[in-house]
Amino acid sequence: MQTVPWRGVYPAVTTKFHADESLDFEGTARHIDFQIRNGIHGVVCCGSLGEASTLALDEKLAVARCALDASGGRVPVLATVSETSTREALRFIEGANALGVAGYMVMPSVIYVADAREAMANVRAFAKAAQRPLMVYNNPVAYRVDLKPEHFAELADCEHVAAIKESSGDVTRITDLRNLLGDRYRLFMGVDDLAFEGLALGCDGLLAGVGCAFPRETVALFDLMQAGRWDEARTIYRWMTPLLHLDVSTKLVQNLKLIDALVGVGSEHMRRPRLPLIGAERERVEALVKTALATRPEHCRSVA
Amino acid sequence: MQTVPWRGVYPAVTTKFHADESLDFEGTARHIDFQIRNGIHGVVCCGSLGEASTLALDEKLAVARCALDASGGRVPVLATVSETSTREALRFIEGANALGVAGYMVMPSVIYVADAREAMANVRAFAKAAQRPLMVYNNPVAYRVDLKPEHFAELADCEHVAAIKESSGDVTRITDLRNLLGDRYRLFMGVDDLAFEGLALGCDGLLAGVGCAFPRETVALFDLMQAGRWDEARTIYRWMTPLLHLDVSTKLVQNLKLIDALVGVGSEHMRRPRLPLIGAERERVEALVKTALATRPEHCRSVA
Amino acid sequence: MQTVPWRGVYPAVTTKFHADESLDFEGTARHIDFQIRNGIHGVVCCGSLGEASTLALDEKLAVARCALDASGGRVPVLATVSETSTREALRFIEGANALGVAGYMVMPSVIYVADAREAMANVRAFAKAAQRPLMVYNNPVAYRVDLKPEHFAELADCEHVAAIKESSGDVTRITDLRNLLGDRYRLFMGVDDLAFEGLALGCDGLLAGVGCAFPRETVALFDLMQAGRWDEARTIYRWMTPLLHLDVSTKLVQNLKLIDALVGVGSEHMRRPRLPLIGAERERVEALVKTALATRPEHCRSVA
Amino acid sequence: MQTVPWRGVYPAVTTKFHADESLDFEGTARHIDFQIRNGIHGVVCCGSLGEASTLALDEKLAVARCALDASGGRVPVLATVSETSTREALRFIEGANALGVAGYMVMPSVIYVADAREAMANVRAFAKAAQRPLMVYNNPVAYRVDLKPEHFAELADCEHVAAIKESSGDVTRITDLRNLLGDRYRLFMGVDDLAFEGLALGCDGLLAGVGCAFPRETVALFDLMQAGRWDEARTIYRWMTPLLHLDVSTKLVQNLKLIDALVGVGSEHMRRPRLPLIGAERERVEALVKTALATRPEHCRSVA
Repeated sequence: MQTVPWRGVYPAVTTKFHADESLDFEGTARHIDFQIRNGIHGVVCCGSLGEASTLALDEKLAVARCALDASGGRVPVLATVSETSTREALRFIEGANALGVAGYMVMPSVIYVADAREAMANVRAFAKAAQRPLMVYNNPVAYRVDLKPEHFAELADCEHVAAIKESSGDVTRITDLRNLLGDRYRLFMGVDDLAFEGLALGCDGLLAGVGCAFPRETVALFDLMQAGRWDEARTIYRWMTPLLHLDVSTKLVQNLKLIDALVGVGSEHMRRPRLPLIGAERERVEALVKTALATRPEHCRSVA
Repeated sequence: MQTVPWRGVYPAVTTKFHADESLDFEGTARHIDFQIRNGIHGVVCCGSLGEASTLALDEKLAVARCALDASGGRVPVLATVSETSTREALRFIEGANALGVAGYMVMPSVIYVADAREAMANVRAFAKAAQRPLMVYNNPVAYRVDLKPEHFAELADCEHVAAIKESSGDVTRITDLRNLLGDRYRLFMGVDDLAFEGLALGCDGLLAGVGCAFPRETVALFDLMQAGRWDEARTIYRWMTPLLHLDVSTKLVQNLKLIDALVGVGSEHMRRPRLPLIGAERERVEALVKTALATRPEHCRSVA
Repeated sequence: MQTVPWRGVYPAVTTKFHADESLDFEGTARHIDFQIRNGIHGVVCCGSLGEASTLALDEKLAVARCALDASGGRVPVLATVSETSTREALRFIEGANALGVAGYMVMPSVIYVADAREAMANVRAFAKAAQRPLMVYNNPVAYRVDLKPEHFAELADCEHVAAIKESSGDVTRITDLRNLLGDRYRLFMGVDDLAFEGLALGCDGLLAGVGCAFPRETVALFDLMQAGRWDEARTIYRWMTPLLHLDVSTKLVQNLKLIDALVGVGSEHMRRPRLPLIGAERERVEALVKTALATRPEHCRSVA
Repeated sequence: MQTVPWRGVYPAVTTKFHADESLDFEGTARHIDFQIRNGIHGVVCCGSLGEASTLALDEKLAVARCALDASGGRVPVLATVSETSTREALRFIEGANALGVAGYMVMPSVIYVADAREAMANVRAFAKAAQRPLMVYNNPVAYRVDLKPEHFAELADCEHVAAIKESSGDVTRITDLRNLLGDRYRLFMGVDDLAFEGLALGCDGLLAGVGCAFPRETVALFDLMQAGRWDEARTIYRWMTPLLHLDVSTKLVQNLKLIDALVGVGSEHMRRPRLPLIGAERERVEALVKTALATRPEHCRSVA
């Protein structure tokens, strides 16, 4: 089996737009550079948080190219396979392979609520086309397709299936996966507000959302956990948790783009049908960010 | 307010493919013709059952053109707006308007779980672009966006929003909509196995699934209900219900394409990630169809 | 198989209390008499709406005796088996049998989320002890135990299991039950706001909640449906629906006791932990009742 | 505010019965003694796992007395308030106070799905009557009443409300409670298979289920966590997790009584409607226990 070097904090980066909904490559690149300079270990572009569902196939390739350029080889760049048919997904993989992405985060099925047989067949088709490592994004909450430990046991013979982004919300899955499959897969916690719990249980990394705006703080959490300094890690985690909850919401894009804007690392422009937050929802996020900035730990502060 | 003539049985027609997943226009046209010859009152193409999520924008336009040709003006043809971004939806409407569709079934938001403000803004944007009647497809079970009677009250000033396909699964919505909004909207029951209930409560029509294979039987149900011949209608409905349940499933496409194939009006070819049924699931559908065919009411039998 | 004569409108009567939470037998009897004088066909005491979970075993027997006296043989009186252990349930049945109740509404399991095997064993134990007809109350929403049509097929050999109160909220169950079991069981719709739908599909009666305050109106709905006069029935049903929704709520006791009080047929006294409605919740119910009274149909008005 | 000394591993002990469903005091006492000799820090009797819903009020008092005798002052004994009406709950507290229990685990509302106002009023009524420390059992999964951090903030002025058993299944609540309320409440993780996660996040103890059969192993987990020896703790936790999952089930009583029997510390007798496991369910538990016993860590093995 192939072992991927993926480990640590991998933000699922937001995609930047101009006010007219056209792509803002310069803003996207600048934000990615900010994150890399603050220590993150990899970049995943055009995931749910990257508004994948509003991007055409060629736009997603253009964003992947932008991310590769911004990274300049400093960290691996993963593209996201989120097409709603297998044939389009294979077309996307062909294009992204040509660009030279390090691998893929793959959604087992989008819109169609596939059963496990169909979802696994899809993952195998992606792996065969990609010939690069895949991180399977398991998110039954958002996509209603659930690949359980027994399904990952079935997929274990598929060389390129290298990692799992666990986003079921059921943190006990980490232990079940380790018990059943040992270290066969790299495990990334995909739920922001289960980051500490996931790392405590033995995850290899975080697929981070709020980490886009607070990369160094998130890396500090990861490093402290690795060092067994859990009390210090917990202190950072408690500080961060009110923001992390904002990633676990149907409004995650709006919430996190507003955080980006308030922290000064991005704009709120987004594509419809999403609309920026208004009223009480907006005020709540603003208040949480204000409090977080006022109480931000000194020693691991992200640098603009 | 504009009153649309839409009333009766509107099948959400399946899209036919060849074995290599390419579009089968001839098969699609033949199936639509079969339905029209058996009395249905309108056609909706490229809905959920039409595997919309696997079709590119230009493919959906090609299927709409195929349906228009097949209908030849005999019944209204509605196209389905199921794009995952507003900008693509508007592009689709521009194309379908040019083809001359009678109107649209519109999904308030696909993939993104919009709130009511965003979903209503989306519907208004579609109406403005279409300048033709829209049927809003309310399906919180599949799409997790729920437009409730109070939201339709808000949308009542929007001239082109003419009809509602109610698929919440909560049949009491029909009474609530009538109590709040009288006859402002044409109401179509979108859940196959609530067809009788919906018509009894005062729906104007059915957005039918199993009706694709049993059009005349479905029209008979509708006609008997309109005539107040409830007992006869209930007899047909009880006969049909085991099949109707097959439409209320994440496997509705597979189920209904298998019914089509067994009844002799279509093939099972579909696009991945969907796969045809196997094993016990397949046997169960086959047994239900066999029983249904053996006990089919004589007087309203669909004619090939 | 035994055929029970149960048919028509069976209110699940509220239990009346004094301000100090002691039982108000006089008020309970007066309310039952009001309902019988207004045409209802049977009485079920100490169900969910009768605050069963706050009544001791001997209190439930006392209420049953009170209901029997109030009825004076005019209509059948059913007691409710809602004990949380089988041994207590059998003790209750022994006591109620001695009082001479006509039969029982039985909850397959309360608090403990029994599986079908356990729930069916419970029902059989009740039937054996009762030696009188049982109506099985299937309410997976409230009790999380679901007896499906296939389970009622298994129970069909049990002579005393005579009727089903269907409260799953899935109205399609009525057709499934009729398709699988014909007229083996008397079917009562147990969800107030599915009354019309249930009767249209072929239910034999209603286990009514709001019918406690509007008995004659509810009987009129039933009679019109039986007579095939569905348009007139639908008119009454639309009028009644905003109130009927109040029965489908965790606050059903508070809602319906407030209705009773506003209509003048009962008090709001209840046992803790329930508390009477306050604030916006209360105002909403008051407004709905006010509207209902102002638009009440003349021809079927309940008489004090 | 009163600070309670409660901390560590508090098993929710099973109640033992004879084959005829009568109480087995001797067996109950022996099992409690076994647990105390193996290091647990407190005992909670007649909770969900103690089959509270099948016990009459006087039986629950008799079990409490039995537990107090068995403990002989070695560890605190808490009784459980699980009555379905406030008046009965107050009667129970009066009786248990007279016995000299150390305090109570209280269910905010059983059967009736109280809203937060009603549930808090109930808790306050219990506290006033008890005049001893209460641990509020928050289990919205089983009881559908959810007391959130903001509600515990409201209750913070109530002196005797001393601890929370968090069983929402949402482990992030621990951080939210600490962020909002600091150390105002002792926090016990009430979900067996979130034990490690809860302790990592800063819980003060465990309300354990499987700990009834494996007390020393559970205490070892707790002690290692307190000592910051996370890796060793995680090793025990991974070993234990397949069993811990068995506590998170509607069949928890059957599962854990079967474990007790297989491990040799109790019988499977239970009260109906519960029935002992059969078939595949039983075999699965037997296999899990067999594996667990074969791989049991040496250094912290419970002693008969």
